[in-house]
Amino acid sequence: MNLQLDRLSPTPLVQQLTDQLQAWIEHQRLRPGARLPSIRALARTHQVSPSCVIEAYDRLVASGWLEARHGTGFFVAERKPGLEAADAEHWGEALVGSWRQFREGHDELLKLGCGWLPNAWRAAEELAQAIRQVSRGNPADLFDYSPPLGLSSLRQQLHKRLARLDIAAGAERILTTQGASHGLDLLVRTLLRSGDTVLVENPGYYNLYNLLRAHQVRMLPVPRTVHGPDLQALEKLLAEHRPRCLFINSLYHNPTGTSLTPKAAYRLLELARERDVRIIEDDIYADFQEGPATRLATLDSEQRVIYLGSFSKTLSSSLRVGYLVADEDLIARLAELKMVSGIGNSRFAEQVVAQMLANGSYRKSVQRLRVRLGQHMAKLLGQLEGYGWQVFCEPYGGMFVWARVPGRDFASLERLALEHAVLLTPGSAFDVQGAASDWLRINVAYGQDQRAQAFLQHAGRPSAA
Amino acid sequence: MNLQLDRLSPTPLVQQLTDQLQAWIEHQRLRPGARLPSIRALARTHQVSPSCVIEAYDRLVASGWLEARHGTGFFVAERKPGLEAADAEHWGEALVGSWRQFREGHDELLKLGCGWLPNAWRAAEELAQAIRQVSRGNPADLFDYSPPLGLSSLRQQLHKRLARLDIAAGAERILTTQGASHGLDLLVRTLLRSGDTVLVENPGYYNLYNLLRAHQVRMLPVPRTVHGPDLQALEKLLAEHRPRCLFINSLYHNPTGTSLTPKAAYRLLELARERDVRIIEDDIYADFQEGPATRLATLDSEQRVIYLGSFSKTLSSSLRVGYLVADEDLIARLAELKMVSGIGNSRFAEQVVAQMLANGSYRKSVQRLRVRLGQHMAKLLGQLEGYGWQVFCEPYGGMFVWARVPGRDFASLERLALEHAVLLTPGSAFDVQGAASDWLRINVAYGQDQRAQAFLQHAGRPSAA
Repeated sequence: MNLQLDRLSPTPLVQQLTDQLQAWIEHQRLRPGARLPSIRALARTHQVSPSCVIEAYDRLVASGWLEARHGTGFFVAERKPGLEAADAEHWGEALVGSWRQFREGHDELLKLGCGWLPNAWRAAEELAQAIRQVSRGNPADLFDYSPPLGLSSLRQQLHKRLARLDIAAGAERILTTQGASHGLDLLVRTLLRSGDTVLVENPGYYNLYNLLRAHQVRMLPVPRTVHGPDLQALEKLLAEHRPRCLFINSLYHNPTGTSLTPKAAYRLLELARERDVRIIEDDIYADFQEGPATRLATLDSEQRVIYLGSFSKTLSSSLRVGYLVADEDLIARLAELKMVSGIGNSRFAEQVVAQMLANGSYRKSVQRLRVRLGQHMAKLLGQLEGYGWQVFCEPYGGMFVWARVPGRDFASLERLALEHAVLLTPGSAFDVQGAASDWLRINVAYGQDQRAQAFLQHAGRPSAA
Repeated sequence: MNLQLDRLSPTPLVQQLTDQLQAWIEHQRLRPGARLPSIRALARTHQVSPSCVIEAYDRLVASGWLEARHGTGFFVAERKPGLEAADAEHWGEALVGSWRQFREGHDELLKLGCGWLPNAWRAAEELAQAIRQVSRGNPADLFDYSPPLGLSSLRQQLHKRLARLDIAAGAERILTTQGASHGLDLLVRTLLRSGDTVLVENPGYYNLYNLLRAHQVRMLPVPRTVHGPDLQALEKLLAEHRPRCLFINSLYHNPTGTSLTPKAAYRLLELARERDVRIIEDDIYADFQEGPATRLATLDSEQRVIYLGSFSKTLSSSLRVGYLVADEDLIARLAELKMVSGIGNSRFAEQVVAQMLANGSYRKSVQRLRVRLGQHMAKLLGQLEGYGWQVFCEPYGGMFVWARVPGRDFASLERLALEHAVLLTPGSAFDVQGAASDWLRINVAYGQDQRAQAFLQHAGRPSAA
């Protein structure tokens, strides 16, 4: 195979590689089942990165030219794509980077590194029923804009829910958003200017980094420990810089699965008060915890904490419903921006969520999720230990385990994962600077799939071996 | 009645007035049906603006304390609100200004000035059916994030639709948005910086003005004539300033109802080419026109025109589905921002719209709307002439008539409208500078309601009288 890659062309290398591989498969009239060069071999012979080859193979799998077989590599597909498949590819996504997992019909690879639950775990019947009920109810829910703060029926339910978490928030302090990311965007646009400095946890949520970067906000990383943010580092950063706010995941932190301890929470609030820093607490995993947990918004007595929640992780990412809690003045400014920048949320989606909160079907479904996640978490932690993986902490709930195999870098893990048809998210994605990392975020809900098991076992270093 | 208004208090005057009126009604134990002072009288005795009184009365109507009776004024309600109603008010919205019409349950007043169709005109059965079908279909539509560019099934339908408008746009040039306002926000954030100068039509869409103002973009107004933007003024502004782009409604312009003529469109594109200015064409009323219309995106041969569409006006404002068409590079940047700032659209809503486009129910429903709007437009134009109103132009379709009664200012029109339980949008809202205007945007769909008829007739100056 002799591919001509033009490094000066405006066409990205990945696309050149994909196009030429496809042409090569066509022209060589390769028989179905023929094996393609390994990722490493192709990367070496054409002086491109392995991830460039992975992406190209991946696109050819998506468009039907190749097949990935568990643990053995990439092969010419049994049935080459006809016009219909080519057309489908044309209409599909061809995105690189962190949005790769958002592609439609990308189910050839197991999303072991992804940040959401499998659809099979979700409350399909209950959600579909709520949707049908709303479709037969008030026509306003089918047609009207939602009011600026969000539908009052939903905000009433959110108020009750927050009260159960011991967060005192009246209606005037609750604003619905299109998921927590939208809430973060509204906050960043309202509170921060280009050049401002903020504190973020490291490792942390990559889309928050992307957002802050897009706003040209300077991020100072605070290392995340098993107890919460590293308080010594935090104190030093607060003294040396004048950050405007701190972004934090208190419970079941993404990606480490750690939770804030009461002691750390108390000290954190003390420091924030001393330096007059606002805290933005992203609590989208709240419902994965039954009963009390340590939350800054619960402890806060001076409206210093802005609190974000979402139904994307526990109910549906498709509905785009989340919310935030802040002081009344800020809520008014955020509501104005929400309307100016998109005339608000989907009233239909808000009513569906309100209905499921009111009739108890949401509560029951997250109860089921908690039990299932707990079982999978316990099982996976045992297996990881047996396979020779090291975990950052043993989370007591939630979706994520942060783990590594000492001595194995990401490139080697990714190669192995692809051979087992497993898609990872690189640890570097969760680093503010994008620094290389051998840590992986493992989504426990996918951990018992045989592809995951094969990968985890092969990648590990059994101490008993 | 002696109300004590404190002009130095942090509580807005409107709120003080509302609270004290409510207390007064309670303490005086006024019998149901008792008439309140006229807006003008109360404004005069307490030295506040009539619109302040209107807002306070309006809030008391919303919370159940008062009733507005057609043409006669405000009265103490038959049944004063109990705890339940007070609670509902607490959960409702108390917003002033341009978002007033977005309040829930604000149906006491006829929204003659609003920018959407009555729910009774909408395709309730077809939409509910599509929703139920999608709820029974692919679970991914219930749960998954939508891909960055939007769901491919929807984008395929949009491609076909654009082809019928003679706009050549492949998939890679179509991005779904949460309505056109969200598309405008993505564009403004991506293309403009604080301090940039742009051209906007005047009068024009107030939420665009709000958006540009929020971004600290300088707006230069181009007067809207019956043929489209005033080309002489446009040429002069292009020569004297270096605007980055021009925002335009080609068809059924909001608020004037005028449409761009082919001659004006051709010259506009010539000028834009000469000065290398981008054009952002907001075409959300496209489907109110059967057959060909003059559109810049159709004529454009160099991807200078960015085109926006939406289903909010023709199908549902609740679903939040729109789209935009731009060159491929810009689409990639917009898609990135769309994901970073909210992880995309509702996949469920996109699939519902895709389904209605595919099965023809959308096409049939807008056909019905066009016929109905056409009949109402013709009837209203005849009536306005008879009642002594002056119209800016006689639109050949769409939702809006821009009209005035020579010699009558907005304050006098608003007082009269409120007496007939009609809610107007001030002409000043459509002016870049918010300058007073005696022109009104009249939504023809509400024009035959008896409240509208009574108001229009009383406000007019019949020449035959």
